[in-house]
Amino acid sequence: MQKRPLIFITNDDGYLAKGIKNLIEVMSQIGDVLVVAPDGPRSGMSCAITSMTPVRHHLLSKEEGSAIYACSGTPVDCVKFGISQLAERKPDIIVSGVNHGSNASVCVLYSGTMGAALEGAVLGIPSIGFSLLDHAADADFSHTYKYLKEITLSVLKTGLPNGVCLNVNFPDASTGIKGAKVCSQAEGRFVQEFKQSTDGNERVIHWLTGYFENTDPNNQSNDEWALANGYASIVPTRVDMTDYSSIEALSNLENIK
Amino acid sequence: MQKRPLIFITNDDGYLAKGIKNLIEVMSQIGDVLVVAPDGPRSGMSCAITSMTPVRHHLLSKEEGSAIYACSGTPVDCVKFGISQLAERKPDIIVSGVNHGSNASVCVLYSGTMGAALEGAVLGIPSIGFSLLDHAADADFSHTYKYLKEITLSVLKTGLPNGVCLNVNFPDASTGIKGAKVCSQAEGRFVQEFKQSTDGNERVIHWLTGYFENTDPNNQSNDEWALANGYASIVPTRVDMTDYSSIEALSNLENIK
Repeated sequence: MQKRPLIFITNDDGYLAKGIKNLIEVMSQIGDVLVVAPDGPRSGMSCAITSMTPVRHHLLSKEEGSAIYACSGTPVDCVKFGISQLAERKPDIIVSGVNHGSNASVCVLYSGTMGAALEGAVLGIPSIGFSLLDHAADADFSHTYKYLKEITLSVLKTGLPNGVCLNVNFPDASTGIKGAKVCSQAEGRFVQEFKQSTDGNERVIHWLTGYFENTDPNNQSNDEWALANGYASIVPTRVDMTDYSSIEALSNLENIK
Repeated sequence: MQKRPLIFITNDDGYLAKGIKNLIEVMSQIGDVLVVAPDGPRSGMSCAITSMTPVRHHLLSKEEGSAIYACSGTPVDCVKFGISQLAERKPDIIVSGVNHGSNASVCVLYSGTMGAALEGAVLGIPSIGFSLLDHAADADFSHTYKYLKEITLSVLKTGLPNGVCLNVNFPDASTGIKGAKVCSQAEGRFVQEFKQSTDGNERVIHWLTGYFENTDPNNQSNDEWALANGYASIVPTRVDMTDYSSIEALSNLENIK
């Protein structure tokens, strides 16, 4: 009898988040699930790893075809630890999310959801980060189920190029999803990023906040355009960050001796 | 009178590290310096940002042409906060490091040093991350001074392409530096990453550790080859992580409706 695929699941909002609970439910229809998720929120953790403190883990539940662990580390730690220490076989796929909030455009750099997917690609496992454009704790994910399932089944079937994972973002439930676009990461940045406040001792503190500014708003081939027009965006995302196009132009730096 | 360039300096080892003290010394020969560095070690923080706790800062010293702040946040927070809240004018360049330890190959993903440089590129400021292949707290950086200065002067003069920063790594002092190579990010991954141990209460814990495995060892155009052969490696590193080459091959995903 052929084994069901092993689906490794993590996120950056922690194991209690609605997004990962929905993802586990959908993935359980496709294969066996191994969940290793942070024991609390790890938003904005990017590809961070934990080296100054130990990684701790806790088994939450185990039954036929399903094991769920909480882990003290970052999303990347969850992938590294889960794959090397907890998985009984190499997972066929890693899915991360569903994140509460967008990871389109430059958010891919800060995203713990995508940190986990990138680590999967480093380890040679097809990996997908899923995110919904709704930060609410009780966000409605039901309109994403079909896409979560179909995209995962397609990647299970055909794999992904070496060193490439997918960054998938969905419009929120009020918009619905018109279809999917395979696209590029939009150019953008955050502005007005700090709100000044004071702590209980009247010391000045600053909270990170801000607004996303799309610096290429007329480009119809990027993720921000797709999402603004009701499509799910799918960006193939590389582990290799080299800008090959500028290697030659920078060759003057080789004259330093 | 023409103003001296404003050089923004940060790192991920914290303001007390020898690497940043050396970098400040060299950069002070070139321009005015604004230092906003973490108040303690932030190794492996990648592009992480702090959203659940406030960012705090502390002025350590201020004199003509030099201001030094410690910041409670990550390297990316230091850049965001320093540029938007502390800089009196837009810096001409951001330099990060000099890191104690390699950030070549896939380490670029985990590196707080490079997180800061990538954030600089997001903000449209020419940015460079510098790292030395020596983890020791008392590492010898003296052989890097000429390169730190010349690479910075070159980038100040000619700028960098939009959305691209530099990932510069140096061989350690025992090897010396033969010259510089502009190259690509080597393919690789870490293996044997966890050491099992117990805490003071005899609970099982795991420490992140491991060995780097170069999965493309014969490629002479990448950073690991350059460093192994005595050269400083200079990798132009992109904010845009899109894998353009696989967009078309993945277009079947657009059939999901």
